[in-house]
Amino acid sequence: MRALHLAAGRLRLRTDHPRPDPAPGEALIRVTRSGICDTDLQLARGYMGFEGVPGHEFVGVVEAAPEPRWIGRRVVGEINAGCGRCPRCEAGDPRHCPDRTVLGIQGRDGAHAEYLTLPAGNLHAVPDDVPDEAAVFTEPLAAACRILEQRPVDDGEPVVVLGDGKLGLLAAAVLHDAGARVTLVGRHPEKRALVQALAGGVEATGHPVADGSAALVVDATGRAAGLAAALRAVRPEGTVVLKTTVAAEHRLDLAPAVVDEVTILGSRCGRFEPALALLRRLDPTPLIDEELPLARGVEAMAAAGRPGARKLLLRP
Amino acid sequence: MRALHLAAGRLRLRTDHPRPDPAPGEALIRVTRSGICDTDLQLARGYMGFEGVPGHEFVGVVEAAPEPRWIGRRVVGEINAGCGRCPRCEAGDPRHCPDRTVLGIQGRDGAHAEYLTLPAGNLHAVPDDVPDEAAVFTEPLAAACRILEQRPVDDGEPVVVLGDGKLGLLAAAVLHDAGARVTLVGRHPEKRALVQALAGGVEATGHPVADGSAALVVDATGRAAGLAAALRAVRPEGTVVLKTTVAAEHRLDLAPAVVDEVTILGSRCGRFEPALALLRRLDPTPLIDEELPLARGVEAMAAAGRPGARKLLLRP
Repeated sequence: MRALHLAAGRLRLRTDHPRPDPAPGEALIRVTRSGICDTDLQLARGYMGFEGVPGHEFVGVVEAAPEPRWIGRRVVGEINAGCGRCPRCEAGDPRHCPDRTVLGIQGRDGAHAEYLTLPAGNLHAVPDDVPDEAAVFTEPLAAACRILEQRPVDDGEPVVVLGDGKLGLLAAAVLHDAGARVTLVGRHPEKRALVQALAGGVEATGHPVADGSAALVVDATGRAAGLAAALRAVRPEGTVVLKTTVAAEHRLDLAPAVVDEVTILGSRCGRFEPALALLRRLDPTPLIDEELPLARGVEAMAAAGRPGARKLLLRP
Repeated sequence: MRALHLAAGRLRLRTDHPRPDPAPGEALIRVTRSGICDTDLQLARGYMGFEGVPGHEFVGVVEAAPEPRWIGRRVVGEINAGCGRCPRCEAGDPRHCPDRTVLGIQGRDGAHAEYLTLPAGNLHAVPDDVPDEAAVFTEPLAAACRILEQRPVDDGEPVVVLGDGKLGLLAAAVLHDAGARVTLVGRHPEKRALVQALAGGVEATGHPVADGSAALVVDATGRAAGLAAALRAVRPEGTVVLKTTVAAEHRLDLAPAVVDEVTILGSRCGRFEPALALLRRLDPTPLIDEELPLARGVEAMAAAGRPGARKLLLRP
């Protein structure tokens, strides 16, 4: 099958990549759309030492599954595949299984391909009224919803989101939807402006917020300097949610965070149910820059890395 | 009156320091014992830019107060004095009042003196069965108890405390008392051994714990490298409590903390009630190195900075 493939630091299109063979309990999914995430770009630069097919944002159709009810269903899938036996997996949450694989990120070929496999338990049927172009945002939207799993917001609570990339915009929209009074801080006027298309009422600014008044600050800058900026924006006993996973050294003085008793929360993957529910009232498609055929995937990855790029989708 | 005094980076004993004059709502306290904290040593090195009388750990006797019932009482006192008007003060918690003064740390002369003043609302009577030598530990013990206000522990939960200084030892004792299974990690065999005198049953080791299995890790190392060590010890979705306030740059890669969704809690001052209650079953006096007259305070501060030093007390 056709697949983007990363090996020895080089990304190329393979036309002869073996179609994945579902293990017991797994489903085979024909990908209909995949989305390029900044993490894919990081992987191509060596993050996590990943080799194989990148891609973890997708929507597709089930072609084989242990339970016949899945066959032919349009699905999205949670990306962490656990061992199924450890206490975390037995509690129904493989996101922190120590032996997990992660679709297109760690030990498992991903979605920038014609087919992928995932445990059937990871699948979620896509409601008929959510088109593929929206459903492909389920994974990043779930990552934004994860913030609320960790730190619910109160009505009118002052929240700052740092970063006008896709995740920053989605986080701003999710927190606004949950009732917070959101200020989005970003360096790109054309990207900041997009937040209005996702969630009217979010204030967007290019100026740093450093008055120490935000109850909650989300760092979605993708830069190591984001945490220091977040600590300047947050109020005493406030919370900073760290979404940035760069393989870079943070340099900062944390004494003020100790004195102000700030809570810093690492935040990664969310559950798909709330994201799918949210897709019925939040349209993420203004974030789409362009849709390209998988055959032009190498070009699409380069385009996704350009400053100001929005979401690039691939169609196998 | 006699007082230790810090100005222009120099600590000296003054014999003619003016006795503080209680403002409306404040009490005048004659200090009977004060304790030298590592923060005092940091202040002498320039931390916080403090000038004045250092010292925030004390026990004393009230000589003047707005309510007569306090006169002659043996007391300890919470160290944050709020403005009394902001929402935090009105909620009864001046610890994060933006206009607070802090005894011997910020904008208010402290306890290494014959007299000090504090708002009467900050005072707590010392139970008769708690001697001065134990009561003087109320403030650092409250700082250790603060961990439990922020992150209660479950019976038998695996907890690691990094640092065998006074605060590390007290934190280990408090967490052990609360039911956790505590491992204390410290570099000084003679200080590690002290934890047994505070809380038999705490395991003490000189080897780093880096297996990522602790549910809760407390960084009380007083060194910027403590956080990185804590992140190596904590398990996914675990909590790191940061007690270290050094004016130094942390250099670390936080991506693993994001992937593992670790919670990092800045932690400072605690309430005195639980600490005073705990002093009836936890004897902190094995931590005392020596008690010296205030007149030898400069010498005592130097002694407190020696590697392996325990608590130095001053007696005006």
